[in-house]
Amino acid sequence: MLFSVQVEVSLREGVADPQGATIERSLPHLGFDGVQGVRVGKCIRFDLEAADEAAATAEVEDLCQRFLTNPVIEDATITVAAASGAR
Amino acid sequence: MLFSVQVEVSLREGVADPQGATIERSLPHLGFDGVQGVRVGKCIRFDLEAADEAAATAEVEDLCQRFLTNPVIEDATITVAAASGAR
Repeated sequence: MLFSVQVEVSLREGVADPQGATIERSLPHLGFDGVQGVRVGKCIRFDLEAADEAAATAEVEDLCQRFLTNPVIEDATITVAAASGAR
Repeated sequence: MLFSVQVEVSLREGVADPQGATIERSLPHLGFDGVQGVRVGKCIRFDLEAADEAAATAEVEDLCQRFLTNPVIEDATITVAAASGAR
């Protein structure tokens, strides 16, 4: 069964985010006020072939721990959904 | 009113994604099979002060067009929600 997976990799709270800080500092100069707390992360999407949703989630969690994130400074938020159609 | 905003910046379909392709090529060597169509994007989260949800969405759309994305090769998916509490 094919699953659509989305993994959002974000820096843990308290870890400095220079990219976000740069965006936040630049916005007032461009006329955008009222923006605060900018954090920039990665969003990884893919299709995964697995027996069922539990197996898919387990595989993605393992994948995040070992490959997609640096668990010391990053958190992963995983979303697994049945793919609407094969691509 | 404070809004929590999430902007997912993804490469448009058909635009080459070398980062995604590298992940996809590496996974079988690490024992992860069945992964296909890997695409890597950015996920930008921030808080925005605006009068109402329509104003917040309009400001974020403008921000995406002018600053956060390259509209030639990237798409933005915007999610605006009322912030649960001031941070």
